[in-house]
Amino acid sequence: MSAETSAQPSLHTMASAIRALAMDAVEAAKSGHPGMPMGMADVATVLFTKFLKFDPKNPTWADRDRFVLSAGHGSMLIYSLAYLTGYERMSVDQLRNFRQLGSLTPGHPEVDPSLGIEMTTGPLGQGVSTAVGMALAERITNARFGDDLVDHFTYVIASDGDLMEGVSHEACSLAGHLGLNRLIVLWDDNHISIDGSTDLSFTDDTPARFRSYGWNTISVDGHDTDAIAKAIAEAQTSADKPTLIACRTIIGKGAPNKANTHGCHGSPLGADEVAATREAIGWTHEPFVVPDDVLSAWRAAGTRSAGAFQAWTERFAGLDAAVAKQFTQAVDRGVPAGLTDAIVALKEKISADKPSWATRVASGNVLDALVPAIPEMIGGSADLTPSNNTKAKNTADVKGRGDFNGRYMRYGVREHGMATVMNGMALHGGVIPYGGTFMQFADYCRPAIRLAALMKQRTIFVMTHDSIGLGEDGPTHQPVEHLAALRAIPNLLVLRPGDAVETAECWQIALEATGTPSVLALTRQNVPTLRTEHTAENRSARGAYVLAEAEGERKATILATGSELSLAMEARKALQAEGVGTAVVSMPSWELFAAQDDAYKASVLGTGVRVGVEAAIRLGWDRWLGDKGAFVGMTGFGESAPYQELYKHFGITAEAVVAAVKARL
Amino acid sequence: MSAETSAQPSLHTMASAIRALAMDAVEAAKSGHPGMPMGMADVATVLFTKFLKFDPKNPTWADRDRFVLSAGHGSMLIYSLAYLTGYERMSVDQLRNFRQLGSLTPGHPEVDPSLGIEMTTGPLGQGVSTAVGMALAERITNARFGDDLVDHFTYVIASDGDLMEGVSHEACSLAGHLGLNRLIVLWDDNHISIDGSTDLSFTDDTPARFRSYGWNTISVDGHDTDAIAKAIAEAQTSADKPTLIACRTIIGKGAPNKANTHGCHGSPLGADEVAATREAIGWTHEPFVVPDDVLSAWRAAGTRSAGAFQAWTERFAGLDAAVAKQFTQAVDRGVPAGLTDAIVALKEKISADKPSWATRVASGNVLDALVPAIPEMIGGSADLTPSNNTKAKNTADVKGRGDFNGRYMRYGVREHGMATVMNGMALHGGVIPYGGTFMQFADYCRPAIRLAALMKQRTIFVMTHDSIGLGEDGPTHQPVEHLAALRAIPNLLVLRPGDAVETAECWQIALEATGTPSVLALTRQNVPTLRTEHTAENRSARGAYVLAEAEGERKATILATGSELSLAMEARKALQAEGVGTAVVSMPSWELFAAQDDAYKASVLGTGVRVGVEAAIRLGWDRWLGDKGAFVGMTGFGESAPYQELYKHFGITAEAVVAAVKARL
Repeated sequence: MSAETSAQPSLHTMASAIRALAMDAVEAAKSGHPGMPMGMADVATVLFTKFLKFDPKNPTWADRDRFVLSAGHGSMLIYSLAYLTGYERMSVDQLRNFRQLGSLTPGHPEVDPSLGIEMTTGPLGQGVSTAVGMALAERITNARFGDDLVDHFTYVIASDGDLMEGVSHEACSLAGHLGLNRLIVLWDDNHISIDGSTDLSFTDDTPARFRSYGWNTISVDGHDTDAIAKAIAEAQTSADKPTLIACRTIIGKGAPNKANTHGCHGSPLGADEVAATREAIGWTHEPFVVPDDVLSAWRAAGTRSAGAFQAWTERFAGLDAAVAKQFTQAVDRGVPAGLTDAIVALKEKISADKPSWATRVASGNVLDALVPAIPEMIGGSADLTPSNNTKAKNTADVKGRGDFNGRYMRYGVREHGMATVMNGMALHGGVIPYGGTFMQFADYCRPAIRLAALMKQRTIFVMTHDSIGLGEDGPTHQPVEHLAALRAIPNLLVLRPGDAVETAECWQIALEATGTPSVLALTRQNVPTLRTEHTAENRSARGAYVLAEAEGERKATILATGSELSLAMEARKALQAEGVGTAVVSMPSWELFAAQDDAYKASVLGTGVRVGVEAAIRLGWDRWLGDKGAFVGMTGFGESAPYQELYKHFGITAEAVVAAVKARL
Repeated sequence: MSAETSAQPSLHTMASAIRALAMDAVEAAKSGHPGMPMGMADVATVLFTKFLKFDPKNPTWADRDRFVLSAGHGSMLIYSLAYLTGYERMSVDQLRNFRQLGSLTPGHPEVDPSLGIEMTTGPLGQGVSTAVGMALAERITNARFGDDLVDHFTYVIASDGDLMEGVSHEACSLAGHLGLNRLIVLWDDNHISIDGSTDLSFTDDTPARFRSYGWNTISVDGHDTDAIAKAIAEAQTSADKPTLIACRTIIGKGAPNKANTHGCHGSPLGADEVAATREAIGWTHEPFVVPDDVLSAWRAAGTRSAGAFQAWTERFAGLDAAVAKQFTQAVDRGVPAGLTDAIVALKEKISADKPSWATRVASGNVLDALVPAIPEMIGGSADLTPSNNTKAKNTADVKGRGDFNGRYMRYGVREHGMATVMNGMALHGGVIPYGGTFMQFADYCRPAIRLAALMKQRTIFVMTHDSIGLGEDGPTHQPVEHLAALRAIPNLLVLRPGDAVETAECWQIALEATGTPSVLALTRQNVPTLRTEHTAENRSARGAYVLAEAEGERKATILATGSELSLAMEARKALQAEGVGTAVVSMPSWELFAAQDDAYKASVLGTGVRVGVEAAIRLGWDRWLGDKGAFVGMTGFGESAPYQELYKHFGITAEAVVAAVKARL
């Protein structure tokens, strides 16, 4: 009996629509991953038709459930669901254009909540880990605004590969610790990876692993729709634990010859197998055709939460105006109110007081001013709170397990997990996440930093101990190549302030960059205040500027960042004493400077001798130095010693800068 | 009763020596981490006096047990042990110079087997994960050479932080899968991290987690020397599982006021607390003074395995000469015999056949030639075997669980874990590890790539799908900044061959670089053979060379790498047709080119117009292009589409190169 003869298409028939669309689109593109969407079609059908709170007509509804397809290679699953449930822009033509230039259906899903795509996925482990941040942001904004405004689940479909990735350990351990009971992970336990059976490399007892983190676990047949529904319903009732639902599935389910093999993981099924699959699953329709009754049933599922949306809208309309405004400000991802005032006031005070603070200490002072003024800011550190100076005075911890009132996260020694969780918080909205670690460990965070940049999220990374200036901890902890490596990432602001005033300015830049993540590179060691004349203008915002113009004709320009700015000023003093007109240019951000017009850039860089100084490797500096320029910095890894000795040992001194200038005059 | 009154110092007294040296050295340096060495002193004393097979007089003995201090911040533990057990170079003066420039006692341990330091540690998670590779190499070389030559344990001391790190999940899951029963991890379960109690962020049931990976777990009081000894003895008998011994310890044990607080984690105890500790542990000696009886007891422990070493030496002397030679070649870390011949023969064939292979396919062909000729080579992939072309024909898998005869590792979706395990294999010796993933996932591996470079290990990373040339998988999988980011790492060879001949040459370079890791950046898409005239000389070894000299006067030079080399040749053809003498320079390795003399560099770069072309961002290119040069490449993230369209879309075409040259003539 074909399910289609019944009045209302069965869940299995609705799932067949996903299977057919997935295999047809991959076939048309001649590349892609049909196995995962076909294997998880039943699970997704249950989730989207019975549980997920979403409204394709109001896709960015703040209180929608979040759904993350962590296994992003199975992108046709989410594209099929978006089309079937009625997201307006996801037409069938978009499915036909799967993996083509300019389509809404790229190889891996790219963040666009208007299409039901909450984040960009593909690099394994990122989705499930980022979802932890969404579930956390949900609880934090719930604690602030209450159940009437924020009260939703975060669902994830994750693959074996997602759970093999280390970042899944970091984030899921944290989720268990915090008791993020609104997080429900549906694990596609299909026993197949690209190399073949997962048994080749992977024999974890995954549910036991998750229980060790304090999760609920439930195991079901991923093709038994009743069992799936029962499991999700049970997971929803969890009082204090996230839930992993292990869904035992058959990859490529429906394909008579290729199901349950790695042959259907990452390649088209081929015309013969597509035809055989149509036969096997009783799907007689042409490619990309979904019959009216099936489409209607799916569209009905897409309107399932319209009433909930309406009720939410009414509750919102009934709010006190001040609360409504606070909520809107929080979820609109704009520039925080009061930011400029707080920064300008702080800068004025610093310019007057002229403290010799490490820029990490300056950053701590900035946070003391900003965090009370900007309730969206949620800080944290990967177990380096006293070193990163990330905890503003009088802020309480986000303790979890029902208590989400705090403003500060104890991320543990989980740099990568922290970065993914911050991305998830930024994606969820309602909060502005920042978090600290040593700059050396930017390497651990790197996949998530890149993803923040690609997704255009305002995630703020506070990276202290940014050079050999950290001293005795030695080369394992001294970033020499990290500035260059971070500057390489498109759409990332690398901000390396040279004193306390610039630190405040860089924080302002980071918070105003609503579509760009930032890395604040901060010193461990003290530096003098150089910006002693107060300006309300954010001079760092142009990326580079003349901190000290030459006296007399400018014959030389010293370009410096961060802790080397004061060294540049010393060198300038010596050169001026010898009659060499020397300007010092502070370059807190290459990216911002590169975006200035040519005339400004020329005025800053000057026409004379240029010498760059940075306690890091040269890569990238030639762009600013030109053919005749010189660079004073590192050529290899650091050493363990007090930092003053290291600067001398590696020849990063005012004397070296002076000599480099004079050699080129 | 003081233990010192007995004829033979007790284990606790011996441990007190560690405690005293650690606190004294940290006090002298005014920085460092006393808490961990003091907390784990008892465990380390039991391990080094009763179990560890090591000989300070013959520290690089191939069959020594490996000991890894994963919690590298507790470096005074390993330095104290090296001094106490009699490693000749580790004098008490070195301990006094803890964390000073040029000492053997930097802030974090730096690899030097002559001091009993098997690897550089400090970045958390690396040690325990790298140790998995050591334990794996032990089993693989055991399978090849037998118990007489290779039969040892790998011990690790790991911290809470090590186990919070994601990479510990990847590597320990793999260790459980493989059944590496010779791996014994002593977990310093002290409940304290930098932020305070681990309860702030970490409530895993760690033993349950490790059992889910297929490990044995044992829990002991980390100050009960009998219990520790019993646990290690039990772990040694494990037939098919690695063992985690959870050692419940008190951080800073012995310090009456600061023990069991984060106050003793990363700071000197201070003079008062040092004095109070001396009192509390009954250690009346001056700083850095170890009384003769205690030192004698320790030195005796250091000679405990001298007999075993002697017996091993005798077994080695009795070997068949051919086997002895094979073993020596394997453990000496030299250039593999037969390498050059195999490469030259292959290059000759390629130049004659002129295949249009993707360089990943060319790499697969190189491996088909090399792997049978070089028995040390152990391949693998992070679940991308069919994509990375890393599995040589007719090679069997390293299956584990008693079967370590294969030559190919199924690493699973564990890029970071793979990289650490490869580092461990390289450090152990006897094998030459190479492993593949997509180049995008260099980001996941990055902390371990850096550590390979810092440790000067020949770890070979095969990174395919190295640009937008991977096509439809889109921006999440298209490395645009990764070449730059990898070129930023000191002592790393980034090798991007432009055709099949250069691919063979780059493999030769990687295998000859005995103190340097390499990344082979390889294309997904086909490229033509450009080196059609055979040369035995490895032209890539100079980093850059003139592939095609200008006809007539050289007015322009096009610099290209990898897949863009053929595009440069097309552009040259068009320019020559218009009478513009144009040379094409292939630049497979910037690092090697930078090391050439100035005259050679000048001859390659030419004096005319220079245009660089690489399907990646510009960062770093200005060094080669000069003030007047131009670059054709990427400015941001990629897109999902067939690759031919992407090259057009992003303007990386021969026409664009021609136009750039002509605009500058």
